[in-house]
Amino acid sequence: MNGRRGIVNAKRYIMTLQEVSRNKAFNGYVVKYEHDSEELGCKMKFNVFLPEGSEKTKVPGLYFLAGLTCSEDNFMQKSGALENAAKHGIALIAPDTSPRGVKIEGDDESWDFGTGAGFYVDATQEKWKRHYRMYSYVVKELPSIIYKSLPIDENRVSIFGHSMGGHGALTLFLKNPNQYKSVSAFSPIANPTNCPWGHKAFGGYLGNDDKEAWKQYDATELLNSHNGKQLDILVDVGTSDNFLKDQLKLDQLEQVAKSKGLQDQVTVRYQEGYDHSYYFISTFVGDHIDHHAKYLKA
Amino acid sequence: MNGRRGIVNAKRYIMTLQEVSRNKAFNGYVVKYEHDSEELGCKMKFNVFLPEGSEKTKVPGLYFLAGLTCSEDNFMQKSGALENAAKHGIALIAPDTSPRGVKIEGDDESWDFGTGAGFYVDATQEKWKRHYRMYSYVVKELPSIIYKSLPIDENRVSIFGHSMGGHGALTLFLKNPNQYKSVSAFSPIANPTNCPWGHKAFGGYLGNDDKEAWKQYDATELLNSHNGKQLDILVDVGTSDNFLKDQLKLDQLEQVAKSKGLQDQVTVRYQEGYDHSYYFISTFVGDHIDHHAKYLKA
Repeated sequence: MNGRRGIVNAKRYIMTLQEVSRNKAFNGYVVKYEHDSEELGCKMKFNVFLPEGSEKTKVPGLYFLAGLTCSEDNFMQKSGALENAAKHGIALIAPDTSPRGVKIEGDDESWDFGTGAGFYVDATQEKWKRHYRMYSYVVKELPSIIYKSLPIDENRVSIFGHSMGGHGALTLFLKNPNQYKSVSAFSPIANPTNCPWGHKAFGGYLGNDDKEAWKQYDATELLNSHNGKQLDILVDVGTSDNFLKDQLKLDQLEQVAKSKGLQDQVTVRYQEGYDHSYYFISTFVGDHIDHHAKYLKA
Repeated sequence: MNGRRGIVNAKRYIMTLQEVSRNKAFNGYVVKYEHDSEELGCKMKFNVFLPEGSEKTKVPGLYFLAGLTCSEDNFMQKSGALENAAKHGIALIAPDTSPRGVKIEGDDESWDFGTGAGFYVDATQEKWKRHYRMYSYVVKELPSIIYKSLPIDENRVSIFGHSMGGHGALTLFLKNPNQYKSVSAFSPIANPTNCPWGHKAFGGYLGNDDKEAWKQYDATELLNSHNGKQLDILVDVGTSDNFLKDQLKLDQLEQVAKSKGLQDQVTVRYQEGYDHSYYFISTFVGDHIDHHAKYLKA
């Protein structure tokens, strides 16, 4: 993977951030930026909440990876997270969920594959591999741009997400435990090698010939091979989430945690009566930011 | 106005509420209902947040009237109001902003007139008067349906809103001071007889022949003729609101308040650097709900 990209990476990413909009909120600002992405081969947008104080000094950063069909806007507009982030002085960073405007045949045919559904992997299949590189975009290119341009401290960064983005947060963290201080997830797709959404996405982006290659993007598999860093994973999921049983497979994550003796390091809270929506996220997002603040402000 | 509607009113409104969706949030529920509206001659939707406890006893209710282009969803999804409403045990009620699906020629031609822009008036012009009756819908029909079907106490009800809905909240309150315990507004169109949005809407719905008739829907005019009930109006507006000078005309409202000796009863807070968006609303919505809670829970 690194071989092909080596030359591009050596050139360093283009650093030009264009400000699209800026809205004051809770004494800070929600700013939308656009930039050229080399990893994805298209223009991309992201939103960042810069809390009060970030005009003077670097602040910790918390990435939120959104779910299927979402853009960079859903979390900022609907989660109600800004108040608590402002209280802690933490910046929030909300990337988009796929390349945009690249026009690959079939990329708009379904809501759970292609546009809005990048699944935070680097595609290996011919048709998708030039543009569908959301793993490298979120782990490498976007941070490299952000830390050079915005007052966010790259040594104090954490990650969380929802659904497909919960899968993204857990896998990015488990693959890069030293890059992120902490991780949490709402309703994550916890075992994508073992559910319909994952089969479709991984089959499409990674191919069906080498299913071993799928495991590097599966939180349950990554937890199974984890050793080293002490974990403190927080997961919330609603008991009325329509996707809980067939798509999220949190029971698999919990089983592996138990079999590895990590049950004290992986907390899955089943929230009675809550569903898969942003109303659910907004109810518990304060808890999650408190969780990350423990590590970001330690 | 009452003559023509008398027969309809005598029949009483059809009380059938159809539940469209239900999402748990902050231990309560956001429920979307659909119903047939006689006032508007179409099917209408609204959202209500029913806090924990409302399954056992009636709770106070707080209407939020949304702005141009909005539906019943914007406030519930973007304002971040649910947490504070849940804390106070107050129900939130978010109606739509115009009749829907009535297909009047020209109703979709602009974003500031027709669909999504009912302006909370009862139209008198031939083309609009059958359907564009958002004043009577919000003041009479919707409450009548809600109080018969949902656990909201009709004796403890207040109202607030944003922009066009801030105009709606102020005028509905000033015209019906005994129906609402308190009022507040974000960035309201405070003097619509004196601004482009108001000229277009009132000219269209009420006609240009009798501009005296416009005054019954103008908060500044209503304040000018107000006597009786002690007021405690709270208004927040951003100093970076692009509409502040030409459309909102809060200076007119303040001038009238002063000339009537009501300056202590009308508080307009100019929030430095904030704009017209829901990010602004979300920053101060907690203050507004606290304001209403004083009266709703007195």
